[in-house]
Amino acid sequence: MTASLDRQVSIDGDPPLDPPGGAVADAVGRALAEDLLPLGDLTASLIPGSTVATVGIVSRVPGVIAGRACALATFEQVDQSLQVTWAAGDGAAVSPGDVVATVSGTLRSILTAERTTLNFLGHLSGVATLTRRYVEAVRAANPSTRILDTRKTTPGLRALEKAAVRAGGGHNHRGSLSEAVLVKDNHLGGISITEAVERAKRLWPGRMVEVECDRTDQVIEAVAAGATVVMLDNMGLDQVAECVALVAAAGSDALVEVSGGVTLATAPLMAAAGADLISVGALTHSAPVLDLGFDLPADAGGMG
Amino acid sequence: MTASLDRQVSIDGDPPLDPPGGAVADAVGRALAEDLLPLGDLTASLIPGSTVATVGIVSRVPGVIAGRACALATFEQVDQSLQVTWAAGDGAAVSPGDVVATVSGTLRSILTAERTTLNFLGHLSGVATLTRRYVEAVRAANPSTRILDTRKTTPGLRALEKAAVRAGGGHNHRGSLSEAVLVKDNHLGGISITEAVERAKRLWPGRMVEVECDRTDQVIEAVAAGATVVMLDNMGLDQVAECVALVAAAGSDALVEVSGGVTLATAPLMAAAGADLISVGALTHSAPVLDLGFDLPADAGGMG
Amino acid sequence: MTASLDRQVSIDGDPPLDPPGGAVADAVGRALAEDLLPLGDLTASLIPGSTVATVGIVSRVPGVIAGRACALATFEQVDQSLQVTWAAGDGAAVSPGDVVATVSGTLRSILTAERTTLNFLGHLSGVATLTRRYVEAVRAANPSTRILDTRKTTPGLRALEKAAVRAGGGHNHRGSLSEAVLVKDNHLGGISITEAVERAKRLWPGRMVEVECDRTDQVIEAVAAGATVVMLDNMGLDQVAECVALVAAAGSDALVEVSGGVTLATAPLMAAAGADLISVGALTHSAPVLDLGFDLPADAGGMG
Amino acid sequence: MTASLDRQVSIDGDPPLDPPGGAVADAVGRALAEDLLPLGDLTASLIPGSTVATVGIVSRVPGVIAGRACALATFEQVDQSLQVTWAAGDGAAVSPGDVVATVSGTLRSILTAERTTLNFLGHLSGVATLTRRYVEAVRAANPSTRILDTRKTTPGLRALEKAAVRAGGGHNHRGSLSEAVLVKDNHLGGISITEAVERAKRLWPGRMVEVECDRTDQVIEAVAAGATVVMLDNMGLDQVAECVALVAAAGSDALVEVSGGVTLATAPLMAAAGADLISVGALTHSAPVLDLGFDLPADAGGMG
Amino acid sequence: MTASLDRQVSIDGDPPLDPPGGAVADAVGRALAEDLLPLGDLTASLIPGSTVATVGIVSRVPGVIAGRACALATFEQVDQSLQVTWAAGDGAAVSPGDVVATVSGTLRSILTAERTTLNFLGHLSGVATLTRRYVEAVRAANPSTRILDTRKTTPGLRALEKAAVRAGGGHNHRGSLSEAVLVKDNHLGGISITEAVERAKRLWPGRMVEVECDRTDQVIEAVAAGATVVMLDNMGLDQVAECVALVAAAGSDALVEVSGGVTLATAPLMAAAGADLISVGALTHSAPVLDLGFDLPADAGGMG
Amino acid sequence: MTASLDRQVSIDGDPPLDPPGGAVADAVGRALAEDLLPLGDLTASLIPGSTVATVGIVSRVPGVIAGRACALATFEQVDQSLQVTWAAGDGAAVSPGDVVATVSGTLRSILTAERTTLNFLGHLSGVATLTRRYVEAVRAANPSTRILDTRKTTPGLRALEKAAVRAGGGHNHRGSLSEAVLVKDNHLGGISITEAVERAKRLWPGRMVEVECDRTDQVIEAVAAGATVVMLDNMGLDQVAECVALVAAAGSDALVEVSGGVTLATAPLMAAAGADLISVGALTHSAPVLDLGFDLPADAGGMG
Repeated sequence: MTASLDRQVSIDGDPPLDPPGGAVADAVGRALAEDLLPLGDLTASLIPGSTVATVGIVSRVPGVIAGRACALATFEQVDQSLQVTWAAGDGAAVSPGDVVATVSGTLRSILTAERTTLNFLGHLSGVATLTRRYVEAVRAANPSTRILDTRKTTPGLRALEKAAVRAGGGHNHRGSLSEAVLVKDNHLGGISITEAVERAKRLWPGRMVEVECDRTDQVIEAVAAGATVVMLDNMGLDQVAECVALVAAAGSDALVEVSGGVTLATAPLMAAAGADLISVGALTHSAPVLDLGFDLPADAGGMG
Repeated sequence: MTASLDRQVSIDGDPPLDPPGGAVADAVGRALAEDLLPLGDLTASLIPGSTVATVGIVSRVPGVIAGRACALATFEQVDQSLQVTWAAGDGAAVSPGDVVATVSGTLRSILTAERTTLNFLGHLSGVATLTRRYVEAVRAANPSTRILDTRKTTPGLRALEKAAVRAGGGHNHRGSLSEAVLVKDNHLGGISITEAVERAKRLWPGRMVEVECDRTDQVIEAVAAGATVVMLDNMGLDQVAECVALVAAAGSDALVEVSGGVTLATAPLMAAAGADLISVGALTHSAPVLDLGFDLPADAGGMG
Repeated sequence: MTASLDRQVSIDGDPPLDPPGGAVADAVGRALAEDLLPLGDLTASLIPGSTVATVGIVSRVPGVIAGRACALATFEQVDQSLQVTWAAGDGAAVSPGDVVATVSGTLRSILTAERTTLNFLGHLSGVATLTRRYVEAVRAANPSTRILDTRKTTPGLRALEKAAVRAGGGHNHRGSLSEAVLVKDNHLGGISITEAVERAKRLWPGRMVEVECDRTDQVIEAVAAGATVVMLDNMGLDQVAECVALVAAAGSDALVEVSGGVTLATAPLMAAAGADLISVGALTHSAPVLDLGFDLPADAGGMG
Repeated sequence: MTASLDRQVSIDGDPPLDPPGGAVADAVGRALAEDLLPLGDLTASLIPGSTVATVGIVSRVPGVIAGRACALATFEQVDQSLQVTWAAGDGAAVSPGDVVATVSGTLRSILTAERTTLNFLGHLSGVATLTRRYVEAVRAANPSTRILDTRKTTPGLRALEKAAVRAGGGHNHRGSLSEAVLVKDNHLGGISITEAVERAKRLWPGRMVEVECDRTDQVIEAVAAGATVVMLDNMGLDQVAECVALVAAAGSDALVEVSGGVTLATAPLMAAAGADLISVGALTHSAPVLDLGFDLPADAGGMG
Repeated sequence: MTASLDRQVSIDGDPPLDPPGGAVADAVGRALAEDLLPLGDLTASLIPGSTVATVGIVSRVPGVIAGRACALATFEQVDQSLQVTWAAGDGAAVSPGDVVATVSGTLRSILTAERTTLNFLGHLSGVATLTRRYVEAVRAANPSTRILDTRKTTPGLRALEKAAVRAGGGHNHRGSLSEAVLVKDNHLGGISITEAVERAKRLWPGRMVEVECDRTDQVIEAVAAGATVVMLDNMGLDQVAECVALVAAAGSDALVEVSGGVTLATAPLMAAAGADLISVGALTHSAPVLDLGFDLPADAGGMG
Repeated sequence: MTASLDRQVSIDGDPPLDPPGGAVADAVGRALAEDLLPLGDLTASLIPGSTVATVGIVSRVPGVIAGRACALATFEQVDQSLQVTWAAGDGAAVSPGDVVATVSGTLRSILTAERTTLNFLGHLSGVATLTRRYVEAVRAANPSTRILDTRKTTPGLRALEKAAVRAGGGHNHRGSLSEAVLVKDNHLGGISITEAVERAKRLWPGRMVEVECDRTDQVIEAVAAGATVVMLDNMGLDQVAECVALVAAAGSDALVEVSGGVTLATAPLMAAAGADLISVGALTHSAPVLDLGFDLPADAGGMG
């Protein structure tokens, strides 16, 4: 990873859609309960309650920030009197040493909030950073190709991780089993792709109906049946290019999604081969943490 | 990673301590709500409700399993009539192709549970697998050195991830800010290490009092004050060896913990230098997922 | 309403998709807490604990049943030893006097569960019954027209009410704001329909993009931009027919949805005019309860 | 329904008792979770984040307002920076076109909150409106007759619906099984009315003890045993008048409640016959929604 | 306290009403989370998982049992395979050495459940025991006097403590502010007792309307206004007797409740003076724990 | 109890560690739900909504205050517009008639909050008061002896009660089974003390390992094995003194805890005998409530 990650914002220059506030408050409340119950922060009690400080949240490495809402909620839930100034919003690219935010107030409270804040920010910024790398990797190859997440999210954090993918410039695949139809081979016991697509369009009108395809003939069948998206599962470059051509030849506006084992090295090739969408499970299930820290100035701490 | 990972169990051959059941049920309930509300599994509704199947949960790669309790709770919450046979318990090393568990019942229910099950199993087994690699890396160098996790856990999953560390053969550092005292430099504004340790021992009798040290004189002071553990933060090998000798020379039974940027390459060196404990944040914040899948036999699916 | 309501099942004869189990258990737990805290059922305490009975849940009027899962969960949460036999599953049409289910066990428990059971069953069956009436009203006029619900659901009961609509033979419009894009006039401050649709398709690939239209030129624009569904808001019959023709003439496979003030009288006319979808808010926000009761046989009650 | 509905307030001109705040916050949190998880409002993301607007909540029809606390909590939970001015409090009668409240702020936030706000306001105002109609219907016939709700409430919304009944000028029957004793025929297996009342008064001192009566001899027995209220179940007008006379003749201060199938047409007759209380399940289980909408001025929307 | 405490059961020999099951499950879940998160029972992990045992729950002192449902739920939530045999149900009087219940199964699980089980049983049995002492103290003096609890309960445990009072043979005063009207002097700013009672009877028909009285003229006024109960607050014996006579002279069936500082010594005197009800806050806010323990047989523990 | 209770603060004059805020908010929310659902405060509705008042929370007896955070959260959750001025913080000693806090605002709201506020304050101040008495009892005898609580806390209130113990000047024993190892005789089926301690130190590095001892030879074994704390269970004074000497003779820095049946009379003797720690279950399971009340000035209440 280099420091070249660009600020990727949504169309019109607006920031991407934030996670729903309820999901933020609940996740933060759970995390603080994990860390503070039943006795609170034993070590913080050693510090005089009158000591105040100003602390910077600083990035040690290049990356993309996500999780601001969680950090703010953490400070709020720990101590409403803390003053927070945020410098690098969700989606901002940071370089080593960049200050992401500054927090002022009682040192006890700041230190009590430190680990929970960093656990959210580090994980979600890790997701945004990896997403941004994929986004940048495919942009030159094919500016219309979009990077998608999957449902392979950390249990309990789906709303937050999907928002982090958006902060990184990626797009969200379906949010849940309840949102759209995705027919995989395991679903096809006893019915054909054609039957499955038609049934889906009948039962769930208007929704995305996607079909996972391992072979070109499945792509042809899915497109003919009216699939919204065909997912090419673990296909090679040539097969992908062939399927893209098949869809075009059929006069369909179905989107072509490439999925399964795509890496930063192969993603631009898939994009160049015409993939509309590339979905990457690793964005959410295997992104390493972004290294961030709380930096207390050398002369910090004083009696208020 | 190779297939050589051994089955690591706790003393006496007993399995490591499971996560508390309440934490499992709550996490699973939240994850299923994320995936199924409000309409349920749209795609599953395409499959006839009478189709039954037996599916194997299979590892694609070598690794160590963790998260069985979560998988069982997922199947239970989705459909109590599913029959599950578990083959590889928490802590078991698996090779590519090994069957971890077998599930029988209504195909609709099995597919509805698939992703949530794999999200838990994959993430927690990823944690256990990385832990096991560290445990094996240090064992030859120093069989008494223990690998520790940290509080750098995924928000909402601390109990589960710490159990996964145990499944991997690692040990748990403090579970929360409420459990023990760990004095870091940020805590030392205006008071000395000696004062901090004495105050901690007075206020929180009997508990672990750990001091983060950047320099050897801090180690000497912490040991003299009666610290239970001295954490050597980002020290080099020579410094670690020097500190280990200092603690021994002081006649102290304080444990020496090495922390900060330890890798699979440097961990055995730190162990050989005499570290009692090596803590690794990456175990929980950056472990890649373990690749597991649901395999439906070719002839699966039939009218019950 | 007459007794002529038919059993409407989904394609292939399978029952419609049940509500997610978690939504059922939570809603039932809340309802029982409302009715029983803090002291429990004062009146039930007057009955000897040894009295047992068998009670029938009986419909007083013709209708369609929904809410079985809620009723079962209510009995289960009140007293696990109650025996319940269910006669008329979700989607079944019943006539006055028909027994929906039979419950045996401690009379105290049965009476404690009575009102909560009926509140769920009555409300959800009311939704299913009204839905069925619309479904039957349009079937003769146009068998391919589908009746849809809306997001105008009772707060806290969306998953259950949308399942009741399915039980009635209707289909679900989007489950939430998170599932699909529906551009209304309020969204169009400063951007055109074309821009909105293109932006939606870029930001949220593959999803349904629906546009609410008040005029025929908006329909033309929406279809040209690639909308998945055009919603004709409060249009007259002639306008609807004109729009259906316009969509066909454009060679689009966009669905035409009629919405706004549709009644049982006008729905078949709209269907005959070519509407693919008719959405009716009243299905969930104004369906009267279905009148059901607990009937204790004249000779009921005896010492066990 | 006509526009003649009067403002009905409690004694002393004070507004009726609000629902408990915890019940409001919980119900609103659940409703927003239903509508926004996991991805948030997809359509709102199409609008520039800088667009601000002022929107009026307007009634399309005559009615009585209830649910203000829920609406306020919805705006608060979606976006704390929204400014809300409330014009028509709980219990206020509105005419078509009346502005109930005005909301100013970010258009995205206002539209995200729209449906949840209206779902609460529409349903609860529907309850209040139907209640008011009953209250007005009986007032001329007998000013001391009170209209009561029942426990036939929507699961999860009891506190809110019972507050809406109060807003409509009605009164609350018991809030739960835990509050008071109501002996129905199903409770009388093996014990007499006399025994039941005496037992209830012994076990649950001071509480209301009500007896459901189908016959005049039961009324006589209940009153003699000391019942607080006798409920005349599905009796005709003559029977009601006879029972009222019987209670008076007994010198009892027991209240006479009429219940079962009372309509707007029959309620004043029952009141004139001397009923102290008339309970109407339909107030909460079958009240149609009050038609309210968000009206954006024609020139709304601008870059802030 | 002596061993003479009798088994006090409700009318007809039936046991008193249990607490609602939902309240039990929630309270137990919270208590186990307090004790087991995040790591579980560290000490139990030292015991081989194969060790099984049978443990008796034994009373060290005489008392009355309450809390069985909580104990059962605790064992169930910790380990569903534990076998529990209950010997002394809620309301049973026990002597020192009496076995309340026997638990068999994995020793690890039994010890993990021990403290939570005893915290519930000890506290609730303490409440039941103190209640029984008051009940027995007044029985000889006036068999129709009933002992009442108050709303002075431990936050979060009201349902359980009120059930424990019933187990002790006491009766429940109002369960909440929502159940009944109790006018205290603080409520009387600007309105008279007469106005308050009439308003209460108008607004909340049928409910108990109780008035706290410090003087005899207040009793006269409250009774004349139609109060259901008059509460004599901190009155002396003579005043109580005078008030009892005043109520009788008025031909009222209002109940006379004595409240405020009543002790085991004064309770029988108040009963003899004619009090219908004696309410004692100490039953729930100051009852000492009942001393119970888990007794492992000397030869317990073996490899299963 | 006398009025001589001193203000006991932690080292450095700082107040003791507050309970975690999440625990406070949750407990208060539950308590208010217990008291206000579903209808709210019936009696408060009798008071004109315009009446305002200023009320003092006054102690009737000498004691030590704890629970301020709960009281503040109660007022906040009932009515955010109430103004509260706090006079006696957690740990403050109060005399009869002392004003603990003053609350101003709508009288309805103040009275609705009264009982919940007092239930928290009274119970937690009762815990703090009893703790203070033990602390003062041992201070003269041995200033280094500390008073500890136990895990014998009221279910659901552990975090709050342990904070109340700190407010009283006591110290917290382990917060949960997850925090530290405490080997009791029930754990020793089949393994020796030496094995248990070594296993505990191996499995749970750095943590407190405490051993319950009934005999002096067990103390010797535990100390030799490296126990952090030896708990002398129900030993007499001479035995305690002997064990203290044994530990010193062994050159161990293990702490000596006395436990089991210690009273205010025996605690100073145990302290004088050299106990480092004295744990008292009664602090949390049997502390009587501290008598506090809401005092409305005689001229209170007026139209705002």
